[in-house]
Amino acid sequence: MRVIDQTRLPFEFEILDLVTVADAARAIRTMVVRGAPLIGATGAYGMALAAREDSSTAHLEHAAAMLKATRPTAVDLARGVDRVHRVLLAVAPAQRREAAFREAAVVSSAYVDQCHEIGRHGMEIIRELARTRQRVHILTHCNAGWLATVDWGTALSPVYMAHDEGIPLHVWVDETRPRNQGALLTAFELAAHGVPHTVIADNLGGHLMQHGKVDMVIVGADRVTAAGDVCNKVGTYLKALAAQDNGVPFYAAMPASTIDWSVEAGAEIPIEERSAAELTHMTGSTADGRLETIRVIPQGSPALNLGFDVTPARLITALITEHGPCAANRSAMRDTYANRAANP
Amino acid sequence: MRVIDQTRLPFEFEILDLVTVADAARAIRTMVVRGAPLIGATGAYGMALAAREDSSTAHLEHAAAMLKATRPTAVDLARGVDRVHRVLLAVAPAQRREAAFREAAVVSSAYVDQCHEIGRHGMEIIRELARTRQRVHILTHCNAGWLATVDWGTALSPVYMAHDEGIPLHVWVDETRPRNQGALLTAFELAAHGVPHTVIADNLGGHLMQHGKVDMVIVGADRVTAAGDVCNKVGTYLKALAAQDNGVPFYAAMPASTIDWSVEAGAEIPIEERSAAELTHMTGSTADGRLETIRVIPQGSPALNLGFDVTPARLITALITEHGPCAANRSAMRDTYANRAANP
Repeated sequence: MRVIDQTRLPFEFEILDLVTVADAARAIRTMVVRGAPLIGATGAYGMALAAREDSSTAHLEHAAAMLKATRPTAVDLARGVDRVHRVLLAVAPAQRREAAFREAAVVSSAYVDQCHEIGRHGMEIIRELARTRQRVHILTHCNAGWLATVDWGTALSPVYMAHDEGIPLHVWVDETRPRNQGALLTAFELAAHGVPHTVIADNLGGHLMQHGKVDMVIVGADRVTAAGDVCNKVGTYLKALAAQDNGVPFYAAMPASTIDWSVEAGAEIPIEERSAAELTHMTGSTADGRLETIRVIPQGSPALNLGFDVTPARLITALITEHGPCAANRSAMRDTYANRAANP
Repeated sequence: MRVIDQTRLPFEFEILDLVTVADAARAIRTMVVRGAPLIGATGAYGMALAAREDSSTAHLEHAAAMLKATRPTAVDLARGVDRVHRVLLAVAPAQRREAAFREAAVVSSAYVDQCHEIGRHGMEIIRELARTRQRVHILTHCNAGWLATVDWGTALSPVYMAHDEGIPLHVWVDETRPRNQGALLTAFELAAHGVPHTVIADNLGGHLMQHGKVDMVIVGADRVTAAGDVCNKVGTYLKALAAQDNGVPFYAAMPASTIDWSVEAGAEIPIEERSAAELTHMTGSTADGRLETIRVIPQGSPALNLGFDVTPARLITALITEHGPCAANRSAMRDTYANRAANP
């Protein structure tokens, strides 16, 4: 399995080989790969790497537990792991290696198809806004582009498709502290695709909305509850509050597999605590082109780094999945999504 | 005039001499000194430096215009400059130098007294919260401590006094991108004073409030309108929205001189646009103790850096000035504040 090392983007573009299931687990934990669908696919391939190492039921149990323990919040990771695991338990050990890679490929390519459909549905929303505007200004938080999702993206898939159709748009890119996935990854993706964009501090979006500079907000999701609460990168909730306060529509885009029907309220979702070093230190390029890590918070001050927050369903205009847009509430979601086959 | 170079804190503690009015203007513009009251005092002393150089009316006109042009948003700067300027125009050129330093000292020491009173009033609010809690958790944004205000601080003055009284408290310190005044200056101040605190990303406050981890929010202000809208460091509005959504009281603390009775709606306040480099680059200390500046946003991506936003009066529990707390609305503010002598 070959992955882009996202911890070095945009300063260096490096491809890593993941050879063992331990490699896959480490890549997820250290955020070499990140984004709910991508870690779902990496979890699925991680099980395939495990089956190649040792196709015994005991080793697969161990591998599944190790992979799922890497990051607790995104539901796609557990789904991807469990789906391959389930398939393998149904076949004899001798067939497991081949079956695992086949199933992981199904998971991975299903994400690509789903993200393509999310883009198609989301683009119609942008197109509609463009009817009454010279240019559609879209605010996004964190990175939910192709880097996060095997291909296309969730939140950014509609942006790419609308841009490719010639709909005039501009993206406000939240920096997304502390890991700066917006400034580093979303800006990198948009620049590479030629999409007009501006990086802003996470603090600025509210002011821009107050002044009519944002026509819609679109974000990804790490887990959506059965009641439509959206768990996503920390800070999403603040932007949703500002969107509501200023009448700006707020969308969350995700494959239907990101909906966790077993969880009702967002407060039940485990919120990952990551190392304070992600907040206290930053890495970037020096004037002479070296990558350097600096401390940006004084030594004597503790720091807390929680990765996600929950945006209550009441603040969300609609969810956008591969099956189309849907109000963020239990009955609408059940009608629109629950009777469809979820992947993985 | 001697000032602490706040652009180097907390990594280096350096005192600069401001000798000319041009030095004072540069110190304000580059944020060697920052914080509404401190730039008010620096503006006042800047006029004294100008009078020492050349006490002619023409030079003083020129100096006042130069000082006021350095930063457009905080009203205390213009007030401090205008107050000394007015006094000087009323005396003969030969007396101006001495009169200017005397008047600047009045402005400066009035801020100290006012901040002390703000602390006394704000401490009572913290004391009240402490009656039903083991520890009072206070969230603040940016830096409104003694560094920002000659002494004591506005938002932090109640914190210091409550801590000194033995009221158990803990401060959540918003990092405050892009200049990181929270992580760098507020954390430095609190650590030096022994106040328990934790630095957080600007994105985290909403989540903490959803989970009952914040008992009150207190911030400073750069300008307050006659209707009670509060212009403060960008991102303040987002925290005020989260506070309202979670029933957390939200206070803004400032001397009465920060109220601009000539402006009704916050949208009329000019919002300073600063260099994008403040967002795209960060300075901190390397592992071997050098100060290094790194680029943290890719070269090909534009960035926008607006310094302030406006929190509507409806989101504010109360203002706290040297005359005590007051609801953020025109009639209450007129009753409580307008008939008092404003300084400067």
